[in-house]
Formats: sequence, structure tokens, C-alpha cells
Amino acid sequence: MEPKIQEVITDKEQMRQWSRTMRLHGKTVALVPTMGYLHKGHLSLVEEAHKLADVVVVSVYVNPGQFSPSEDLSTYPSDFNGDIEKLMNIPGGVDAVFHPHNLYDYSSNQDTIETPNVQNGIEGGVLSCLEERGLGHETWVRVERLEKGLCGKSRPVFFRGVATVVTKLFNIVEPDFAIFGKKDYQQFRIIQRMVRDLDMPIEVIGSEIVRDADGLALSSRNVYLSPEEREKALSISRSLLRAKSSFKMGETNCRELKNLVIQAIDDAGGEIDYAEVVETESLMAVEEITRPVVFCVAARFGKVRLIDNMEIHV
Amino acid sequence: MEPKIQEVITDKEQMRQWSRTMRLHGKTVALVPTMGYLHKGHLSLVEEAHKLADVVVVSVYVNPGQFSPSEDLSTYPSDFNGDIEKLMNIPGGVDAVFHPHNLYDYSSNQDTIETPNVQNGIEGGVLSCLEERGLGHETWVRVERLEKGLCGKSRPVFFRGVATVVTKLFNIVEPDFAIFGKKDYQQFRIIQRMVRDLDMPIEVIGSEIVRDADGLALSSRNVYLSPEEREKALSISRSLLRAKSSFKMGETNCRELKNLVIQAIDDAGGEIDYAEVVETESLMAVEEITRPVVFCVAARFGKVRLIDNMEIHV
Repeated sequence: MEPKIQEVITDKEQMRQWSRTMRLHGKTVALVPTMGYLHKGHLSLVEEAHKLADVVVVSVYVNPGQFSPSEDLSTYPSDFNGDIEKLMNIPGGVDAVFHPHNLYDYSSNQDTIETPNVQNGIEGGVLSCLEERGLGHETWVRVERLEKGLCGKSRPVFFRGVATVVTKLFNIVEPDFAIFGKKDYQQFRIIQRMVRDLDMPIEVIGSEIVRDADGLALSSRNVYLSPEEREKALSISRSLLRAKSSFKMGETNCRELKNLVIQAIDDAGGEIDYAEVVETESLMAVEEITRPVVFCVAARFGKVRLIDNMEIHV
Repeated sequence: MEPKIQEVITDKEQMRQWSRTMRLHGKTVALVPTMGYLHKGHLSLVEEAHKLADVVVVSVYVNPGQFSPSEDLSTYPSDFNGDIEKLMNIPGGVDAVFHPHNLYDYSSNQDTIETPNVQNGIEGGVLSCLEERGLGHETWVRVERLEKGLCGKSRPVFFRGVATVVTKLFNIVEPDFAIFGKKDYQQFRIIQRMVRDLDMPIEVIGSEIVRDADGLALSSRNVYLSPEEREKALSISRSLLRAKSSFKMGETNCRELKNLVIQAIDDAGGEIDYAEVVETESLMAVEEITRPVVFCVAARFGKVRLIDNMEIHV
């Protein structure tokens, strides 16, 4: 099949019109939201999207709204030309790439409202809206309970930013399907809950984690691991696998299973953020595995914070 | 013109399909969201809607998500048959009435998620989601700065509930236009900001306040005023008019103008909640009137809390 990317669109209104034209022609639309620096995990989401819908839109946008000032927004890796090349080489390519400059700039839409200075609004506009004489971005979508646990504990504005930018992307692209990787398991469940609670006319699909040959879950941040750190980071996926085996051999007590993982990561020199066994939909902590759960882990190796998880089907 | 109501729809999915069918036939759709017990103010919104769009949907739904436990959800007046009759008698009628039973019941949509018990979730589900084993409604749209002032001070969950239910209605009806009364001025500006910030593909129109012959702004809650309370409540609109005249005669100091209104309502026996002069879009307090403002008042007469406002164009 010929490599193809039909369109690279940067304008919100043009994106919406493109999508509406597709729908008018009876085509279903799938959206794969990304922050770019694409790896095989992202590409597998695009392949999944092709199975679901007639046309596939990939958005490439590093969302300032989900980074706190202490986090790595400024150093988040990017390579847009590389991304385009990778997308072109997927079987079927993609039908449109949405690559907006700034999703929080409303100056072109409303004459009466001045340009918010989003460069200052790195936390996502909450601080900046006062500087902007009350006219900056200030609307946030919150999935109030699910956003609090797991990654939400150490990243308090993260899921607020994710839910908000995904809502914006949904309102711009108006897709029938949206595909999220299960590597960001909490994010996937938050978006699914948000779509249900706000009656968004979109089906949210979770796609399986893609791993390197050594077992490390693919992540754009892996590029920052030194070879030594990378070797140590394998303790995450290896110990999760061992926990799963241990469950299959009869161990249902979550404290035991967690200790196994925590010990292994600790021994490898990783700094654990959390290791939790939770229900798949409610993400509520579980003490004994009697129903489907997901074992979620976050740990730091050097300066790089990694997350991984493993579903355990009963 | 023949009185008409094409459809009364109670199901979310049916409502969305109805609306999409209209759009497929090239028709634009306007939504007028109401909590029922319609008066001439609501009917003027419908007339406004007819001017804007090809077809008009009126939603009638008392949203539990915007009442706090201490507020008047259980006694909020309703008369659905009366509402239908009034809508039928508007020139052009309405094309559909959306009258859902419970917008927070997700049991029919998702097999894997159990029925949330929204009867307990009167505050809007935040308390109840834990009772529901983490599966209840928990997503809220917050317009974080605008929701805090004016009515937000005494009604802390109110605008969170309004923004959320309006988002749901927008996602179900998918209108091109939505019409809100300027009597609920803060609500109108919050919805307008939300639509901008979340890139919703909808134009939000504010429609002028409709008043009775004596000047009282129409409200479903007026029915609870005794004749004496009603007479006293006229102090709100009368003093706002006097403040506007005073401004026209040269008084630009907001403290002076506010004192005039506060004094008049106080003299009439009303209990002031707030009297504020604010910018029309940011709703930020103003000390001197040098640009367009709106004078917003909330006051209680007996058990009835009334709001009113007056725009002052410079």
C-alpha cells in the first residue's frame, strides 16, 4: 500500500470541517490523541484505529495543561518530521494529522476577548487567567475520584489537564472512536468515565501495551534512560510478570504480591512512587484478588519516571 | 400557524438521532435548556431560537446536580403538561421537547457498569459514587474563576452542576445554537466561557430579561412569593433602574450606586445576598464605571431567593 498522509491540519475550525466532511460522506472517524515523539506503541493505536473506523486522525500536541511547573514540559521530546515519516509508513497511513500550535489561544475565535498569554500559563491557565484580566482559559473537566489515586497523588493537576485537552480534541475532531493505550491505564479509565458521565457520543477503546523485546513498556520518556538505568528499569515488567505467575500459582493476597514487586524494583535501585492492585474500572484498591484487577506501578530510575501495569483476569 | 410539537423525547440516544437526522437534512438546530415550569421568559428564548435556527429543541429537566442538599430541589415547581401547552401555543411551536427521566443513570449504556443510585446522589453524585462502589457519576465541568463570585459564594456546587448538565445536554442534542436568559447572567457568561474553553462547536446566545408589567423579572420561583412579598420584591428592579438613571446623570462610583440599591432593598425588608457591579465578560468587580458593566443583585424575600441584574452600557 502507498504511504500516505492526506492532510496536516493546524487550525481547529479546519480540522472540524475536515471531520464533518468525512461524516457527511458516511465515513466513521477514529482519533488517536498523542503528544508526538511516536513509538511502536502509538503506531499500534493507529493500526487499531484502522480496524474500527473508515478514516483515522492522529493528533500531535504536547499539552501544557497537564504538566505542573516542576515537571518536564520544556524537555518533553519532540520530532514532528520523524513522527510524520513513521505515520506514513504504517499500512494505510493516516488520513489526517492534527498538529495545533496552541489549543488555549482563543484570540482568533472571539473578537471581544483578548489573547490569553498561555506561555505564562504553563500550569494550564489557572494562574494566568487573573493576569489576563479574567479572560484566560479557566474551564477544567475533572473526574473527581478517579483522578485522585495512583499517578494523581504525585501529579495533582495531571488528569485535570488530560481530561480537559481530550475534551477539547473531541469537540474539535468529533470522532466516533478514540483509542488510548492501556499503558496509561488510569488515563484510559478516566477518559472512559468522562465520556460516559458527560454523554459524549464517542466510543473509547483501550489498546494493549506494546513492549520492547526485553519487556520494557514503550514510552517516549525511555529515550532519557541511560543503558544502565534501562537495564534496572526492566525490574518493573519482570516483577509484574512474576507477580502474575505467583497469582496463577495461587497467591491472591495483594500485600504479598505488592511486596514482591516493590522488593524487586527496590533491589534494582528504582525509587517506587506506587505499586497498587486495583479494580479495573473503579480503580479502587483490592486486598484479595477475587475479580479482575490491574497491577499498576510507577517508579523512578535516575531522573526518569516510568509507569507500567498488568491486567490480571480472574 | 398551527400549534405543534413534533416530538417528546425521553431517551438520550433517540434525542441524538433525532438531532443528527435534522442535521443530515441540512437543518440547523437550536437548544433552549430549561428546568420547566415555563413562563414568558422561557417562551421568549424559544422565539429567539426560531430566529436563529431551522429547528428548535426545548429541554425540560430539573437537574439534581445543581442543588445542594439544603436547597429547594424537592419543592422546585413543575407542570409538564402546562409546559407542553405553552410551547404549543408559541408561534412556530417547538420541534422537539427533550424530557429525560434521569440524566445520571448510565445503566442502559454500559453493561459492565452497574446502575448508579442517583436518588441518593442529590448533590450530584460526588457523595454517592463511593456508595456505588466507585461506579457512580463523578465528572464535573468547572469554570473555576467565574463560578466563585456572585451566586457562587452562597451556592458552592451550583455552577459546577449547571456547567456539567449543560455539557451533557450539548453532547446529547448537539445543537448549533443554545439560548440562555440574561436573567441568570452569571450562568450565561459561565456557559459562554465553557464553550470557548472546551472548543464546543456551539454558539451561545444571551436573551434579554423579560419582566412583568410591574417590573419584576420573571422567574419560576416567583410563584412562591406572597402578594406582600411580591410588592416588596419590586424594590430590586426599581432600585436597579434608579441606579442606572443615577449613572446616566453622572454617578460613576460603584459604592454609591450599590448603596442606593442595598438601601432600597433593605428598606423594603429584603435580605441582601449580594449587590455587585462587575465587568460583563470577566465578572470582575468594578469600582468606577468606565466600561460596560452589569449590576447583579440577589436578595431573599421570605423564603424566596430572587436574582436580577441590569446591564449598563457606557
